[in-house]
Amino acid sequence: MDHAELFSSIVAKKSFLCIGLDPEIEKIPSFLLETKDPVFEFNKRIINETRMYCVAYKPNIAFYESLGDKGWLSLEATVKYIKKKYPDIFVIADAKRGDIGNTSKMYAKAFFEKMPFDAVTVAPYMGEDSVTPFLTYEGKWIVLLALTSNKGADDFQYHNEDGLRLFERVLSVSKKWGNINNMMYVVGATRAKTLNDIRRIIPDHFLLVPGVGAQGGDLEEVVTYGMTNKCGLLVNSSRSIIYADNSRKFDKIAGEKAREMQLQMEKYLAERSLI
Amino acid sequence: MDHAELFSSIVAKKSFLCIGLDPEIEKIPSFLLETKDPVFEFNKRIINETRMYCVAYKPNIAFYESLGDKGWLSLEATVKYIKKKYPDIFVIADAKRGDIGNTSKMYAKAFFEKMPFDAVTVAPYMGEDSVTPFLTYEGKWIVLLALTSNKGADDFQYHNEDGLRLFERVLSVSKKWGNINNMMYVVGATRAKTLNDIRRIIPDHFLLVPGVGAQGGDLEEVVTYGMTNKCGLLVNSSRSIIYADNSRKFDKIAGEKAREMQLQMEKYLAERSLI
Repeated sequence: MDHAELFSSIVAKKSFLCIGLDPEIEKIPSFLLETKDPVFEFNKRIINETRMYCVAYKPNIAFYESLGDKGWLSLEATVKYIKKKYPDIFVIADAKRGDIGNTSKMYAKAFFEKMPFDAVTVAPYMGEDSVTPFLTYEGKWIVLLALTSNKGADDFQYHNEDGLRLFERVLSVSKKWGNINNMMYVVGATRAKTLNDIRRIIPDHFLLVPGVGAQGGDLEEVVTYGMTNKCGLLVNSSRSIIYADNSRKFDKIAGEKAREMQLQMEKYLAERSLI
Repeated sequence: MDHAELFSSIVAKKSFLCIGLDPEIEKIPSFLLETKDPVFEFNKRIINETRMYCVAYKPNIAFYESLGDKGWLSLEATVKYIKKKYPDIFVIADAKRGDIGNTSKMYAKAFFEKMPFDAVTVAPYMGEDSVTPFLTYEGKWIVLLALTSNKGADDFQYHNEDGLRLFERVLSVSKKWGNINNMMYVVGATRAKTLNDIRRIIPDHFLLVPGVGAQGGDLEEVVTYGMTNKCGLLVNSSRSIIYADNSRKFDKIAGEKAREMQLQMEKYLAERSLI
């Protein structure tokens, strides 16, 4: 999938919603715990009820790794299910990986060869040769951390050299490693006003924006400061959709929550004449 | 294990060697490929022949993830084997994880609860709340990336604010999050001369030093600039030990290579009257 195809998918669905698939065994409705693979079962039902309202899913790998090899099987089953049944949906491995070259190559293999992810999130600290091994796969993307949604973002990401903050340096330097068809950036919704500065450096790249919902970010601000004429945004919501309800109707309620967000997004897209 | 116990182990073994267990299926001696779990079989044989010459093992998780759920089982079997048979050996999950708080907690669970690792490597980009969830486990450590051994380290780690380079800021800020009993830092051997500057900020913390061997770092320089009066170093070698030979004697040869490094280390420890 390239930049234009991603935009087409957004136009078709009138949505730029990404749903985080972060299953916690303690929060999964109890009736699912008797199934063979409760995590996959949970994901599958969420997917079936939300897939018309979103353009992307983003399993955060930590939630699967915390379950050991079984978690890994649930993850594999989930991404294969999505790409087989709904191949137009973009699937991001939220893994925040990054290592020396020959090791990053192994991570790329894990997410792009062993599993059919479209993209993987990558941490920038180790620089170019830790990132580029992910860029050798045709049609696959990396999503590089720029400015994250958590409090700890203040510790280093604003470190300032001659007026250039670290996250701006990450953007300026890294944008040369790939292009708008294989790189996007994580920018937390809790940092929406900084999107102005970010758009000066990368006017066209897609941004993956977590932090709307449980983390308190504001969708309107994100749209105001971050949207491009090809949308350029994937806004992620996890907990406020997938854990909206804990009963046997959890999947229907998740669908309704996703639908609410889609309708808001449709309004923003229409206001800007993108649909 | 705490700082003093790690030093005791170094004194007892006259070694501060850490061996990287980074199995690549293409490089594993072919006669092992017929066994049920070639990766574990490879690791087990390497461990049995090298464990008297090293104080730590460091599986890099990428090599296991690239094999999917089977890789995860091999990893689990490896760390459990070491901790059961040789409980005094320190085992580091080289995972370079780091995410928002509730997600880092899941990674901590993966490496410290599902598996009995003593330590996990963590990337600093997302700041304090991405790191501290790993520090809530009594007796467990994090190894924070400071200055890495790869070329890409130049891209961001030297970003300079008022004379403080990013890696120095990482050290200064993060050392308050834990203490010398639960935090160490990654400093690449290829950056040995910078160890002087690093020791001014963290005079006593252990450093995990990759890059000796295949990556070209120099052990003598690392010792000169980085050793403390409690050693304060774990020097890692992976490829030059585990892939020294490809025959049926690969494990014996790995043992000989590890022994060579141990003897060099013994000399340095003796010269400084630490043993």
